[in-house]
Amino acid sequence: MAEQSGLKNRGHTVADMEERRAAAEAFTGATLEEIARGGMDPETASKNIENMIGTTQIPLGYAGPVDIHGGYAQGRFLIPLATTEGALIASISRGMSVINDGGGVSVAVFQDAMTRAPVFRVEGVEHATRVMQWVDTHHEEIDYAVSTTTSHGKLVRIEMFPSGRSLYMRLSFQTGDAMGMNMATIASEAVCRLVETETGATLVSVSGNMCSDKKPAAINMIEGRGKTVVAEARIPREVVEGRLHATSEAIVETNYRKNLVGSSMAGTMGANAHAANMVAALYIATGQDPAQVVGGSMAITTCEDIDGDLYIAVRMPAVEVGTVGGGTRLPCQREALSMIGCVGEGKARKLAEIVATTVLAGELSTLAAQAAGQLGAAHARLGR
Amino acid sequence: MAEQSGLKNRGHTVADMEERRAAAEAFTGATLEEIARGGMDPETASKNIENMIGTTQIPLGYAGPVDIHGGYAQGRFLIPLATTEGALIASISRGMSVINDGGGVSVAVFQDAMTRAPVFRVEGVEHATRVMQWVDTHHEEIDYAVSTTTSHGKLVRIEMFPSGRSLYMRLSFQTGDAMGMNMATIASEAVCRLVETETGATLVSVSGNMCSDKKPAAINMIEGRGKTVVAEARIPREVVEGRLHATSEAIVETNYRKNLVGSSMAGTMGANAHAANMVAALYIATGQDPAQVVGGSMAITTCEDIDGDLYIAVRMPAVEVGTVGGGTRLPCQREALSMIGCVGEGKARKLAEIVATTVLAGELSTLAAQAAGQLGAAHARLGR
Amino acid sequence: MAEQSGLKNRGHTVADMEERRAAAEAFTGATLEEIARGGMDPETASKNIENMIGTTQIPLGYAGPVDIHGGYAQGRFLIPLATTEGALIASISRGMSVINDGGGVSVAVFQDAMTRAPVFRVEGVEHATRVMQWVDTHHEEIDYAVSTTTSHGKLVRIEMFPSGRSLYMRLSFQTGDAMGMNMATIASEAVCRLVETETGATLVSVSGNMCSDKKPAAINMIEGRGKTVVAEARIPREVVEGRLHATSEAIVETNYRKNLVGSSMAGTMGANAHAANMVAALYIATGQDPAQVVGGSMAITTCEDIDGDLYIAVRMPAVEVGTVGGGTRLPCQREALSMIGCVGEGKARKLAEIVATTVLAGELSTLAAQAAGQLGAAHARLGR
Amino acid sequence: MAEQSGLKNRGHTVADMEERRAAAEAFTGATLEEIARGGMDPETASKNIENMIGTTQIPLGYAGPVDIHGGYAQGRFLIPLATTEGALIASISRGMSVINDGGGVSVAVFQDAMTRAPVFRVEGVEHATRVMQWVDTHHEEIDYAVSTTTSHGKLVRIEMFPSGRSLYMRLSFQTGDAMGMNMATIASEAVCRLVETETGATLVSVSGNMCSDKKPAAINMIEGRGKTVVAEARIPREVVEGRLHATSEAIVETNYRKNLVGSSMAGTMGANAHAANMVAALYIATGQDPAQVVGGSMAITTCEDIDGDLYIAVRMPAVEVGTVGGGTRLPCQREALSMIGCVGEGKARKLAEIVATTVLAGELSTLAAQAAGQLGAAHARLGR
Repeated sequence: MAEQSGLKNRGHTVADMEERRAAAEAFTGATLEEIARGGMDPETASKNIENMIGTTQIPLGYAGPVDIHGGYAQGRFLIPLATTEGALIASISRGMSVINDGGGVSVAVFQDAMTRAPVFRVEGVEHATRVMQWVDTHHEEIDYAVSTTTSHGKLVRIEMFPSGRSLYMRLSFQTGDAMGMNMATIASEAVCRLVETETGATLVSVSGNMCSDKKPAAINMIEGRGKTVVAEARIPREVVEGRLHATSEAIVETNYRKNLVGSSMAGTMGANAHAANMVAALYIATGQDPAQVVGGSMAITTCEDIDGDLYIAVRMPAVEVGTVGGGTRLPCQREALSMIGCVGEGKARKLAEIVATTVLAGELSTLAAQAAGQLGAAHARLGR
Repeated sequence: MAEQSGLKNRGHTVADMEERRAAAEAFTGATLEEIARGGMDPETASKNIENMIGTTQIPLGYAGPVDIHGGYAQGRFLIPLATTEGALIASISRGMSVINDGGGVSVAVFQDAMTRAPVFRVEGVEHATRVMQWVDTHHEEIDYAVSTTTSHGKLVRIEMFPSGRSLYMRLSFQTGDAMGMNMATIASEAVCRLVETETGATLVSVSGNMCSDKKPAAINMIEGRGKTVVAEARIPREVVEGRLHATSEAIVETNYRKNLVGSSMAGTMGANAHAANMVAALYIATGQDPAQVVGGSMAITTCEDIDGDLYIAVRMPAVEVGTVGGGTRLPCQREALSMIGCVGEGKARKLAEIVATTVLAGELSTLAAQAAGQLGAAHARLGR
Repeated sequence: MAEQSGLKNRGHTVADMEERRAAAEAFTGATLEEIARGGMDPETASKNIENMIGTTQIPLGYAGPVDIHGGYAQGRFLIPLATTEGALIASISRGMSVINDGGGVSVAVFQDAMTRAPVFRVEGVEHATRVMQWVDTHHEEIDYAVSTTTSHGKLVRIEMFPSGRSLYMRLSFQTGDAMGMNMATIASEAVCRLVETETGATLVSVSGNMCSDKKPAAINMIEGRGKTVVAEARIPREVVEGRLHATSEAIVETNYRKNLVGSSMAGTMGANAHAANMVAALYIATGQDPAQVVGGSMAITTCEDIDGDLYIAVRMPAVEVGTVGGGTRLPCQREALSMIGCVGEGKARKLAEIVATTVLAGELSTLAAQAAGQLGAAHARLGR
Repeated sequence: MAEQSGLKNRGHTVADMEERRAAAEAFTGATLEEIARGGMDPETASKNIENMIGTTQIPLGYAGPVDIHGGYAQGRFLIPLATTEGALIASISRGMSVINDGGGVSVAVFQDAMTRAPVFRVEGVEHATRVMQWVDTHHEEIDYAVSTTTSHGKLVRIEMFPSGRSLYMRLSFQTGDAMGMNMATIASEAVCRLVETETGATLVSVSGNMCSDKKPAAINMIEGRGKTVVAEARIPREVVEGRLHATSEAIVETNYRKNLVGSSMAGTMGANAHAANMVAALYIATGQDPAQVVGGSMAITTCEDIDGDLYIAVRMPAVEVGTVGGGTRLPCQREALSMIGCVGEGKARKLAEIVATTVLAGELSTLAAQAAGQLGAAHARLGR
């Protein structure tokens, strides 16, 4: 059946893609012209997707420029953002402009490790104890097992959590400029085979959810995952009043009632206004994994009134980004990375600092807008 | 200065966009050809973005077909998914194929309301009491205030949470086929003005974070936000063994040690393998807000062994989707919606059922792969 | 065997108790004179304990007096507190004295319901839907089932949460002046039998943990359990400075960095300094269930600087107390209740207000001490 | 004024106590005979309480005997429990008896450290970085500062969490057989003074809530606080069926729907039936801090069906107990400790193993009762 063969087609040529798209049109009755329009060569994306029928185009704009004083990101940047939320870029840009007036953003990476946490079935408490002792006394063998799978990755920490007949092993890796999830998974599997052989523990899943990937997890908020980044800015009183039409005191109060107390009462991980918005737009633009917006959403935003000036900071415990591998290889995404000087090796921490900077600017602008009672109005004017 | 004027250009014509892009190239030193290639008319996206310089193309494929028996989604569907994660679509498709062999997915929407939660400053306990009493006795006036802002939205619930000098008011709206965040915000502002006038409470922020939008929040996991959906499938024993190369018992054990116990020990909201992956790919393809992947990530996956068959279900408390407004207006996104018969009015709950179905298939496949020890291998073969 | 017969002895007379105690001494080799000293008649406690061998004596003191302006508690109270933590009562008393100087505590009960949440096994989504519809349309029958088990309890709310083959039903009861857990359990069992008969759902446990009793649960923090109470006080600037040796600004800062940001970063439910201390001491003194300190520990403490005065409030979402039944029948506990005018019917909400008042005073004193750098010193001087 | 002078009396003699009690009677109008009856010498409790007027007597019974195979607790134990909840001891005893039939409990301590987490105000990101670097390179000076305050305590770990202008420092101490909170606080204050002097950071509170004491906190659930203990038992099928009137399958299902899925849906820390009950009763009997029931309530209970036998385990991440200091010095409490061979030095881990054992027995009995539909009935028969 033509339609069936089209749907089953696994090829990566343009012709294969066109046949699949035609089959999808036949199957669904939909016309898929726009999806075809982008013209991406499916060969380019052969490691990123299966059953490709075209592309989804997301509008791309920029926010900024913004002045960044980071450990890795230094200078004046235009930030590429892919979004469909009207008013978002305007708001972030406003935040950046105000931040520039205060001298820019200071930002630093405080931790950098990707985690994977296998779960083993053990016989019970006594067996768990033996497995843990074996691991504690065989780091060299374990490191060697890791080294057989990767030249970039390095195991830097092992935490173990026994619970009845389950034993969780949270492995933390330095993964260079890759986001590192796959590197960590493959290296973890090698560790698991070794542990199974040497201890009699049985691997149940290479991911036992104490990793924890793409789920809102306290363990990531507390211990960090990917990069842990803090960004801050100080906005002079006259800038706050002249450009944000609010006072530092009002913004601090908004942050207090909304982000701190409100989040606590809602049982939220993190305490922010809309960090996920900035994270999503920047992740999509630069080829990061958009499901990892979840980790990025756990930011904590703090505001303080220092003699009338506004101090604002965001702590992001889990910025899971990379500048090699994954979606960063794709054409548009690579160009977006090039806009911020983040293509390839040696750039992942720089990218993480840019993420936190962008979140900071978005938080500032939204908090100021809410402090000034402008949120609905902004959406009504600029958005949907 | 040419560059500066390009960066400041606010127009929506193709020429405006090209000028901006050229300015961005000049500013950053990057070449932005691929971003230009998609050819989307910036006028089309004028309500979705500012400072547009082109588009980001995300590879689009499909998973399925999958048989759905829902309250709203009924039939055989091909699911459009925009992703850069190799092996994801293959995995979801495998799950769907197996599910079809078991008779397809049953799915239902159990709740549907969008929330916004203003926070007011009050004088204290006694004032909070008076404000709450006023609200409790003036639903008609409040409904009228809502009606002045929207013909589609309807206020269906008001919860109030006093805490010292803060009073939080969680407003739940039916918002038709819009995701509804903006409708809820604007209607809430009208309610807030009324409350301020009548009670002397002072609005601090129209969003006091008990909403809670784009943050991982227990209140949404428990009370729901957007659509609350449950999907399930039953896979006959011979299908589990023949096609997933695992047993129901092994998959149930994997779900138990990983999703249930592991998630609990990690302090996770929800209990799933990778719901956010499916949510992100489908949200991006269909023009949903990708920051709301956060709400979608709180799914709970349960597996049971029923006489050797595998029963699997996902509960998704917060599927925040719409089929009108926002990114759904954009060309590619609209085509993706048309692939699943979800364009326009009367389709939002259908879309929510399709989201839960897709998550179910992805959960099944990944759990089965982990139960069979295949995760790293699959990524090594198909992915990055 | 004498020892065995002593250990197996189930009687409630003094002689029975003495035989048991002697058997316990023989079994363990311990001398149990002090445990015998209290002289409580075991008959008195026959509904409160099995295998009674004597009593544990907890030192009892009082804090206060404190001026309370509540909906139920009105006047000047001495608060009985049973504790072994040196410096605790001194600290609470200091807080109360300072609060009195500011005019006392305002406090109100905002909600009052005890919950029990059975879990049923259902066939799946479709069956869950039918069960839920049956419940929604048979409130009268359900209320009747409740009425066959209790004349004091009244079912006021039913929430239902389907998840795969599990259906959770959170039942909220007004339980008069009993804490109400047993009343709610027995009434819930009657409801469950009815639901089983009428819908074919199978009860798995009368407590499905969405209740949630004696566990730190977001559902209780958000929706409340037992009494939801807010207490507040305003301390004039000169009192803060003269008597607490701190400034309002410093106390607000301590609360901000410690209770708000620190708690958020630690992934805490609630945001307080040591609410559980006050709750435990008052619960033990007055015969409440000390395991329900867990619910009491989720308080949120907020501080604000109002023109130099200190405003401080606590919100306690889950004060699970009663003045009839349980430990309130015991002699010492009853006397402690009589110290605060809380014996018997019509007093449970008054007691809840006194709990929140006591927590407020303890929070104030500890925050002020930490703001002034005195914590370790106080323990060194007064405590262990 | 006589009454006033009685209330203000700070003495520790019996006469002082009697004067205070008389003053309290005069103030409140209550008769306090029972509170006087216990006859505890107030001098004994002078480090445990202020304003002492007598004692609260809690009925004390025992559960067991139970066979324990621990790292520290080995043999057959009668467990002293102070409670007012009818049916609790009977239920725990039933669990222990059944566990004995299966060969007893295996239990181990996996971690042991008490934490205190000061929060400092810093100038911002750059200053935080410098402070952290100073700490990382001056462990010797820091250890010396600790050593000036304690000969028993030893600092074993420092974690640092920067967030804007706040820097949290979680210090973990080995504290010998003391629960260790005061030792940790005093040692932390010495560390803080050193950090302040050397780095210019300003201490805001010696407890910044990342400790986190007496609050339900994910950081404790994940990283542990006090002792982290796992206990397990295996009950042969015939014992489950003959004595618990249930099947292993039914108990596993109850644990799955209630403790695992139900807790997850309720947003609970931990996953258990009623761990707090056992913790509270044993803590009160043995002079532990009853507010630390909060930490004990975060247990995770897992059940597995192994060829018809029931495997049951509890993981308790935060058993905060000691056998010296605090309430353990009091007469009744000391006798209760002597019943289980836990008086004084070298016994704290043994006590922690006994706590987990007792929780395990209580969990088993309640799960079995719920599986067999007996919960309400048991309370109706035995309890209030």
